[in-house]
Amino acid sequence: MKVQRVEMFVCPSATPSDTSGLQSLADSGKVTRDNLVALVGKTDGTGFHDDWGRVWADAALREWTAGLLGVPTDEVAKHVIFVLSGGCPGVITPHIAAVTRDWVEVGQPGSEKRLAVGRAGSDPIPPEEVGRMGMIRKVAAATEEAMKDAGITDPKDVHLVMVKVPGLTVGSIKDAESRGHTVVSHDLTFGPEGAGSYANDAAALGVALALGEVPESKLADDVVRRDWNLYSEVAMTSSGGEKRHGEVVVFGNSTASVSQLVIGHSVTTDFIDAHGVRNALRSAGLRFKDGLPDESDLTRLVHVFAKSVIPGSDQVRGQHITLLDDHNAYQIGKALGGMLVASVTGRTANYVSGGERNSHQGPPGGNIVAAVVRQE
Amino acid sequence: MKVQRVEMFVCPSATPSDTSGLQSLADSGKVTRDNLVALVGKTDGTGFHDDWGRVWADAALREWTAGLLGVPTDEVAKHVIFVLSGGCPGVITPHIAAVTRDWVEVGQPGSEKRLAVGRAGSDPIPPEEVGRMGMIRKVAAATEEAMKDAGITDPKDVHLVMVKVPGLTVGSIKDAESRGHTVVSHDLTFGPEGAGSYANDAAALGVALALGEVPESKLADDVVRRDWNLYSEVAMTSSGGEKRHGEVVVFGNSTASVSQLVIGHSVTTDFIDAHGVRNALRSAGLRFKDGLPDESDLTRLVHVFAKSVIPGSDQVRGQHITLLDDHNAYQIGKALGGMLVASVTGRTANYVSGGERNSHQGPPGGNIVAAVVRQE
Amino acid sequence: MKVQRVEMFVCPSATPSDTSGLQSLADSGKVTRDNLVALVGKTDGTGFHDDWGRVWADAALREWTAGLLGVPTDEVAKHVIFVLSGGCPGVITPHIAAVTRDWVEVGQPGSEKRLAVGRAGSDPIPPEEVGRMGMIRKVAAATEEAMKDAGITDPKDVHLVMVKVPGLTVGSIKDAESRGHTVVSHDLTFGPEGAGSYANDAAALGVALALGEVPESKLADDVVRRDWNLYSEVAMTSSGGEKRHGEVVVFGNSTASVSQLVIGHSVTTDFIDAHGVRNALRSAGLRFKDGLPDESDLTRLVHVFAKSVIPGSDQVRGQHITLLDDHNAYQIGKALGGMLVASVTGRTANYVSGGERNSHQGPPGGNIVAAVVRQE
Amino acid sequence: MKVQRVEMFVCPSATPSDTSGLQSLADSGKVTRDNLVALVGKTDGTGFHDDWGRVWADAALREWTAGLLGVPTDEVAKHVIFVLSGGCPGVITPHIAAVTRDWVEVGQPGSEKRLAVGRAGSDPIPPEEVGRMGMIRKVAAATEEAMKDAGITDPKDVHLVMVKVPGLTVGSIKDAESRGHTVVSHDLTFGPEGAGSYANDAAALGVALALGEVPESKLADDVVRRDWNLYSEVAMTSSGGEKRHGEVVVFGNSTASVSQLVIGHSVTTDFIDAHGVRNALRSAGLRFKDGLPDESDLTRLVHVFAKSVIPGSDQVRGQHITLLDDHNAYQIGKALGGMLVASVTGRTANYVSGGERNSHQGPPGGNIVAAVVRQE
Repeated sequence: MKVQRVEMFVCPSATPSDTSGLQSLADSGKVTRDNLVALVGKTDGTGFHDDWGRVWADAALREWTAGLLGVPTDEVAKHVIFVLSGGCPGVITPHIAAVTRDWVEVGQPGSEKRLAVGRAGSDPIPPEEVGRMGMIRKVAAATEEAMKDAGITDPKDVHLVMVKVPGLTVGSIKDAESRGHTVVSHDLTFGPEGAGSYANDAAALGVALALGEVPESKLADDVVRRDWNLYSEVAMTSSGGEKRHGEVVVFGNSTASVSQLVIGHSVTTDFIDAHGVRNALRSAGLRFKDGLPDESDLTRLVHVFAKSVIPGSDQVRGQHITLLDDHNAYQIGKALGGMLVASVTGRTANYVSGGERNSHQGPPGGNIVAAVVRQE
Repeated sequence: MKVQRVEMFVCPSATPSDTSGLQSLADSGKVTRDNLVALVGKTDGTGFHDDWGRVWADAALREWTAGLLGVPTDEVAKHVIFVLSGGCPGVITPHIAAVTRDWVEVGQPGSEKRLAVGRAGSDPIPPEEVGRMGMIRKVAAATEEAMKDAGITDPKDVHLVMVKVPGLTVGSIKDAESRGHTVVSHDLTFGPEGAGSYANDAAALGVALALGEVPESKLADDVVRRDWNLYSEVAMTSSGGEKRHGEVVVFGNSTASVSQLVIGHSVTTDFIDAHGVRNALRSAGLRFKDGLPDESDLTRLVHVFAKSVIPGSDQVRGQHITLLDDHNAYQIGKALGGMLVASVTGRTANYVSGGERNSHQGPPGGNIVAAVVRQE
Repeated sequence: MKVQRVEMFVCPSATPSDTSGLQSLADSGKVTRDNLVALVGKTDGTGFHDDWGRVWADAALREWTAGLLGVPTDEVAKHVIFVLSGGCPGVITPHIAAVTRDWVEVGQPGSEKRLAVGRAGSDPIPPEEVGRMGMIRKVAAATEEAMKDAGITDPKDVHLVMVKVPGLTVGSIKDAESRGHTVVSHDLTFGPEGAGSYANDAAALGVALALGEVPESKLADDVVRRDWNLYSEVAMTSSGGEKRHGEVVVFGNSTASVSQLVIGHSVTTDFIDAHGVRNALRSAGLRFKDGLPDESDLTRLVHVFAKSVIPGSDQVRGQHITLLDDHNAYQIGKALGGMLVASVTGRTANYVSGGERNSHQGPPGGNIVAAVVRQE
Repeated sequence: MKVQRVEMFVCPSATPSDTSGLQSLADSGKVTRDNLVALVGKTDGTGFHDDWGRVWADAALREWTAGLLGVPTDEVAKHVIFVLSGGCPGVITPHIAAVTRDWVEVGQPGSEKRLAVGRAGSDPIPPEEVGRMGMIRKVAAATEEAMKDAGITDPKDVHLVMVKVPGLTVGSIKDAESRGHTVVSHDLTFGPEGAGSYANDAAALGVALALGEVPESKLADDVVRRDWNLYSEVAMTSSGGEKRHGEVVVFGNSTASVSQLVIGHSVTTDFIDAHGVRNALRSAGLRFKDGLPDESDLTRLVHVFAKSVIPGSDQVRGQHITLLDDHNAYQIGKALGGMLVASVTGRTANYVSGGERNSHQGPPGGNIVAAVVRQE
């Protein structure tokens, strides 16, 4: 039988256009035109709307990947999923993680579940469905398909689902309205009533639906960004106006994988909860000593993926914080997530995205943390 | 014999001018005109130069204290030391800690060392001495005097020294130059070559000299903000153009105290070092369980004082960070210190100041953390 | 017959709590408990949500006014209208303008129209009416009433209407929803879909309705923040969660006034239109020479009130600008308005508020400018 | 005899890497490998230290130019001078101006002086000379050489001198100190005592020396950034750590040119002085009507180059401004210069750099403005 062997390589980026780490991986045969599945990274810059670091990184990585694959730049997206999160405030090292999947012939499935990856595209999502049930259902269907592609049947084996969905644009809103439809918001930002936030959150609920974290009966257009008790513990989602359909990458563990890697996850219960981060590392099999990650074992930690959504409340454990009033809350919120993770992992090359306020990605006030650990 | 009984009361501030917590303490007789030694706090606002939150807090607290003491507002500074640090980015709860000292008659000194507080003013520090040996020596002398006032003889018993010294102003520079002297810098900011930074750092070296952390032979005008291997582990300093002499408050443990409180301290060895924070709590006698503060014992933690000076290097544990390039590094650096402390203490009402780059307050790349714990 | 004599005194503020200029006016009898109508000013600070400068100024001015009037602080609002706009980025001098109105007995109305002021409160505006027709109608009614109070009958004589209306809060939304109503937005910000923006813009349309700038037939809930061709040329509005009803101050010219002052206004047609500013000065009777305000006549210019709403388009006169993408657009947009006005008036103590994106206050892309000039 | 024909083409940039405008110029033969002298532009982004927009633009333009010239990318600097100023806050359109110079054979010099351009490199400037007399003298020598290259003999015919000089780096400071030299500052920023500011200002004084604006007798190491009464009216300078020698481009008018273009300049006397901008346009020959640029003649205006250095004083025409206290003063200061120019030219594609505090580029409190106008 054919099983997967998934690898993950974390390359620090000296500048947004730095592809030297990827090129070394290609030169050594670790990353090939056939096995590259995804590039997931944090790009140097402010992370704000006018952060050209992310745009430059996207252009440079897409050009590099086109060269590797031997395809035109605008076809790269058909083969490799890009998830680039802008902004490395504080102690977040700019980096690109390359995810590869090779298929190997084995006699029988493994005795242990190992890291498996699966991908799927959704049906087209028209603008009138963005941030609503239409998007939720289509992302759910794609998530189920990606699980199949990953060889995962039990939703409990899924520990991270990265999703990209269409957002709204001036043009797509016009299109929807010209066809007699309404749209979820005319606010094109990622603010509390912004179309970007609705799109991200509907995508998260789509994952939650597919994985059984939220029953379909509780879902409706008007729970999106209203009922925060509905959420996924493993969905990290983003949206962009240029997309026409959703893209889903599922990371989980499967006996149909002979990877050296295992993935686990947990959630933080509030914004200062280092336990949640430690639990994610434990979940992926890292050894602990005296309640803390065993430093000698931390070399096995390959990567951490964490969200740092800002709580909607101005209280943390009963004490008042002023983060919601802060003009730089978006950037500071992201930076704080980076510190929370780095103070546990003892390293700064962690994938931490966030800064938005409230989300169906993770529980109210808390955040998602997934960890990938190499097995001994 | 007369011994001290020092108390520390942490009052959250709903707004910069909120004195309700202090008034409750006064109403209940805990804070009196005779026992109030210092008000140390974090004020709501940006922490930038144009942060009126800190100025308003100072005005409101000074007015309240004048009422308590029955003295004119401009005489409050003779009786009570104010250390207000502006800016509560992220997870730092705005608060005021009132420090009181009562004198009680006991038969004999205690068997255990308990929290003692001492104060002293320095000789006048003219502008030409700011940031130079003159300031270092005068702060050292005042620190020794404050130790005496605290009843502490062994420098090892000192765990926190808060100092305020004169900075430079357009006017004081003119004064110095008109008398034929030079000044350390014409840059009035807290930037790398700013007079404010020189003043703070000379004050820190003064504390280090008094406590024997740095021998006098290694000190000279040109080591200030040059030789980062010279530093204090317990000095938290600030400077202001309106001051003419230094003010020093020493916190330490002494058998000449019957306080219920004990103070301890430690340092972080780099910017993500949660161990350093934990060590400070351990040093003050907090119980640990499985390598972490015992949650059931955390109620005994009264307060934490921490610096969050940004490292001068763009590397943390060998990985690149971009903090030094960040336009908001000052605010983000302070916020990150707040998260590091809060993720250990499980609370957000911690005193965390900082954001400046490099300092003789704490070791290169690391920071000072002091903790006050109530004894059982 | 009794006619008005309105005066306007512009006092620079050294700090947010500086009331020395007002006190001088009170000492000299120019401002009295009987004649003070409004305090309108720009307060030092960032102008962001966490700008304590504005809050401090409000507290200090309210306390000062309570002293002047001999009433408790919380009753000041019944007697004097406060319009404090936070944020003086760039070349905007922090200041407070005191508006006074005395009543004098004259034999017959004046031959020339002079500055007259009128005030009115609206009926209570429940949360479900905020940003909708209910608010529009109630502000319109209050505007008509304030015109009457000002002795103005022709809407063309109205050159500036300052309005404060209720915004939404977490509490008031709950109240409305508990009574089975919806609210215009759950976004409590001043963003594009924020309740604050809806409230301000409905208030502006209320003024437009009262003055006949927009016919009632064109107004409906769903034109607010949708149809930018509907606007007022004289409405400057703000909103706050603490309000329960609207407050309106009308400034115009009337023969029932013997003021030395005259008011005029104009609009800019786009963001760089200095002609619009000059036209406002011309409209109020300032002399021009060679196409520019005659410098020798500028001493007669008492004050300028201008909005600086950011255009919704990324084009100015066919050229691309990046302001909409700028993280600091709010502050920069306000600063640019300050420069446009200052470069024409040759002074920096101008009232310039704004920074928000799009508004029914002024035409699409342009802004309102009103000027008060002392007659010879 | 051979004379110059200089052209200037202003291309808006849709993104930092947009070279389409330049490519059109190359396709039409207007820009060639032989005539391209300089690319001067404003790049989209924040203008802060971590603004990747400027870096990306530099990389993309350098690559494009290498292609045009048929040389390796790292040799482009030998042939074409790049002056890219980052940050387009407010109403500054991102753009690139290409400056070309063709040589044409004519019978005799023209009767009118027209735009001429000259370039020169300076002798190497070691780190110990940065910001000091060594740099001043070498820039002065290069300026004289560039004037010769431009065919300009009378300094009054010079209206704009763009200079790039070496700054200091950690490495170059070590180098200087290892050779027993001191350096002007250890502060690597563009703050008031920053090496970048000293380098820029010494370069400006070098231009002033060459043009006779400042006599050599008044120059010394310690007047740099101290005696603001010494300044150039035409020097726009920048510095970078990667440079080893200075580069100078002189723009002036000469009878040895048959360009259609003429350049002129003026200075503003303070930060809100629109007259100064208008005078620059007048100086270049633009027609005025009623004291303002004749709108029908503005089509002849090719480009404006302006500095927007923030005044060192907190007063403008006797009124207090808070710009110096503003955390975003750098960005806001630049934006305000953009508005001042745009409000006069009626267009936003102006070259406006600045934001730093105080400079020898322009008079105290004022700024340099140069204008290029096409002759009829």
